[in-house]
Amino acid sequence: MASETGAVRVALLGCGTVGTEVVRLITEQADELAARVGARIELAGVAVRRPHRHPWLTENFPDLVTTDAGELVTRDDVDVVVEVIGGIEPVRGWLLEALKSGRSVVTANKALLAEDGPTLAEAADASGADLYYEAAVAGAIPLLRPLRESLAGDRITRVAGIVNGTSNFILSAMSSGGTSYADALEEATRLGYAEADPSADVDGYDAASKAAILASLAFHTRFTASDVHREGMRGVSSADVAAARRLGCTIKLLAICERVVATDGTESVSARVYPAMVPDSHPLAGVDGAYNAVFVEAEAAGQLMFYGQGAGGAPTASAVLGDLVAVARNRVGGGRGPRESAYASLPVRPIGEVPTRYHVDLEVADREGVLATIASEFARNGVSIAAVRQTGGVNGSVDRVDGSDRSQARLTVVTHSAPEAALSATVSALLDLDHVLGVAGVLRVEGLGRAVSALGMGE
Amino acid sequence: MASETGAVRVALLGCGTVGTEVVRLITEQADELAARVGARIELAGVAVRRPHRHPWLTENFPDLVTTDAGELVTRDDVDVVVEVIGGIEPVRGWLLEALKSGRSVVTANKALLAEDGPTLAEAADASGADLYYEAAVAGAIPLLRPLRESLAGDRITRVAGIVNGTSNFILSAMSSGGTSYADALEEATRLGYAEADPSADVDGYDAASKAAILASLAFHTRFTASDVHREGMRGVSSADVAAARRLGCTIKLLAICERVVATDGTESVSARVYPAMVPDSHPLAGVDGAYNAVFVEAEAAGQLMFYGQGAGGAPTASAVLGDLVAVARNRVGGGRGPRESAYASLPVRPIGEVPTRYHVDLEVADREGVLATIASEFARNGVSIAAVRQTGGVNGSVDRVDGSDRSQARLTVVTHSAPEAALSATVSALLDLDHVLGVAGVLRVEGLGRAVSALGMGE
Repeated sequence: MASETGAVRVALLGCGTVGTEVVRLITEQADELAARVGARIELAGVAVRRPHRHPWLTENFPDLVTTDAGELVTRDDVDVVVEVIGGIEPVRGWLLEALKSGRSVVTANKALLAEDGPTLAEAADASGADLYYEAAVAGAIPLLRPLRESLAGDRITRVAGIVNGTSNFILSAMSSGGTSYADALEEATRLGYAEADPSADVDGYDAASKAAILASLAFHTRFTASDVHREGMRGVSSADVAAARRLGCTIKLLAICERVVATDGTESVSARVYPAMVPDSHPLAGVDGAYNAVFVEAEAAGQLMFYGQGAGGAPTASAVLGDLVAVARNRVGGGRGPRESAYASLPVRPIGEVPTRYHVDLEVADREGVLATIASEFARNGVSIAAVRQTGGVNGSVDRVDGSDRSQARLTVVTHSAPEAALSATVSALLDLDHVLGVAGVLRVEGLGRAVSALGMGE
Repeated sequence: MASETGAVRVALLGCGTVGTEVVRLITEQADELAARVGARIELAGVAVRRPHRHPWLTENFPDLVTTDAGELVTRDDVDVVVEVIGGIEPVRGWLLEALKSGRSVVTANKALLAEDGPTLAEAADASGADLYYEAAVAGAIPLLRPLRESLAGDRITRVAGIVNGTSNFILSAMSSGGTSYADALEEATRLGYAEADPSADVDGYDAASKAAILASLAFHTRFTASDVHREGMRGVSSADVAAARRLGCTIKLLAICERVVATDGTESVSARVYPAMVPDSHPLAGVDGAYNAVFVEAEAAGQLMFYGQGAGGAPTASAVLGDLVAVARNRVGGGRGPRESAYASLPVRPIGEVPTRYHVDLEVADREGVLATIASEFARNGVSIAAVRQTGGVNGSVDRVDGSDRSQARLTVVTHSAPEAALSATVSALLDLDHVLGVAGVLRVEGLGRAVSALGMGE
């Protein structure tokens, strides 16, 4: 359905940082793209809501600009729709229209895909159009194509990593500079990494959307963002960062999707986003600033890592263009990209059943017998302790054994792997103890497989 | 052209470590593969030269075994040929036969692809068959598909990394354990990493084949292994390893392919394999044992890294299966994978013109004025010195300034970037100097971009 000129004609929706780069690449590298596709890629139109906010576009391509995206996506001279606006509505309607009419879609819209990807995929299937979205997860890093295609003959067991650059920038600043969360967020905003409303990044919504997309592809099951257990990083304090450092760890906001096989052989998938301590020896601990990195584990391939820029205009545009070339090649040569597949239909494992290790910081009365009382509370709830460290109290010394209650100490407990429900029950029970004055912090510790031993405690 | 049963039928050539895993995956994961492809994948036959050496195969699949690969590849019930034998002949003839008759080919044969890839690609193009070979480079790491597809809308400027696990295992052992080259090679052989004849690995032939494949895909130009400048790692001594450590570096056998733009705007490609010092702060320095890691730099995407197992039966089989699923999907759904493209036809840049930094270890007479003489020789050849360090002589102290010639010292020079030809001329000239007793070692220093500053010398 390439146009009469033989070119593949593209409708671009949105022209912010990413869209501008897309326009630049399509026009400046037209000859190279034509050589790769076997036909020229041409812009048929660019839809923006307020043209006066896009002086570069309106000056250089006045004939392409339109404010009517709905009309553009089904215009006769449009073969492919590229969407870089984001958000659910009104984008969903436009993309569905395009797909239903047989036009292929390339999108970077993680929120929409995580909320309603199956509807888009079904529309694409029904009309024989392509739906590609490499740019939706981890920016320029080729990650979705490897999951969908390179590992299509393998069984993926785990996908885990840092997929939100803004929160990683903030955590890196807190970790390296001793900056507070508020100051680090301010710097991220000043540098353009964080939005005016940083909630999508720091509350983990963005990472949860990406986790849903990754889990869907990796495990051939349809997951939405609401299937992902989500904890943001607002609660991470400078004290947590310091506690992590004492343990030889760094705090990272992780997205983790894993296939879990129960003892009776039934399989489920755990998809979750939360801040966790990662041993400094683990490669993810060294991923700083706005970079992303994702580990993929598969039965035959073993452990793979992908690393690169997870956001930004040019990197994201690179991923969009890669998809556009694939879609255009399919138009020219016939054929389609791989279908979405949901044949596995694995259930979501409740977070309460997901075992991880925990780091628990307790403020305790500096009295004899405290440790024994607390240790037995962990044991009673089935949580096995890997290591305990007691540090100087606020008023008293750690060696105070006179039984007075005027002083308090800090007790740091690192557990072996335990289900979240058991840990929660333990924490509740601890708070009821007279000796426990407060729980200063609870953070998961993710060894992510091989690096657990770096904690020097074994599993 | 799927068979009458609707299944996609596969002829497997070779059944060693990789082939055995391929058979296992195809048979054990038959249902999952069928769900991903949209048709069953079935083995039509397995060709081995000496069946009695494959008891597992002949016991479990007696009806599949044949010794006549030539007959198998064009049998009516074969849709796809998977080749995991290796070597040029007689494999080339079989694969050409298969491709000419419209059968798609999946191969892990880097030597054949690097020597004669274009002939295979032309045969595939002529008949409309697919030619996939992800497993030929970096084992399980999805690397070729990202280069061919994910980055198809970007301009790649550099591909550099560790692509030979055996040499990396040896260098890791020499570096971490102070082992000699001979002992490390012996251990690699004992563990099955190195062949009885280790030449392909330690002399860089294997890495050069992979570099030719990577350069061809990255720069849309046909390169063969003979276009790749190749230096092996047999010459790396324990003294070199120690010298690297003193400089905060690790020695790695690198494959580097880069696009070079001359001052007049003309472009060329440098493809080379050699051992080089890498700053410890660079991620490649930490890639140990039999692992592979490859950096890819593209104009829009920026810097990406891919990491994983570069060899081994199961990881390589994972890559083969990914390709097989893609080829099978194309059979079932119509369409073909992306074509090879050689439209850019960039020339190879001679190694003499390629600038790198060098680490030069000189044995010099411990006399006054030696440094000045040597420094002026570097300058006369246009090689700029970044740092010099003089260390204790064999017989004398570094502080000896009495002009006697009974003693000698070691002078370590690290240069700024200089063309190989200029460095070679410098070394020749130095050897003619009375003061210079010998050149103990010359090694390149690769900062690989961002990590150069880690040397603490700037560029």
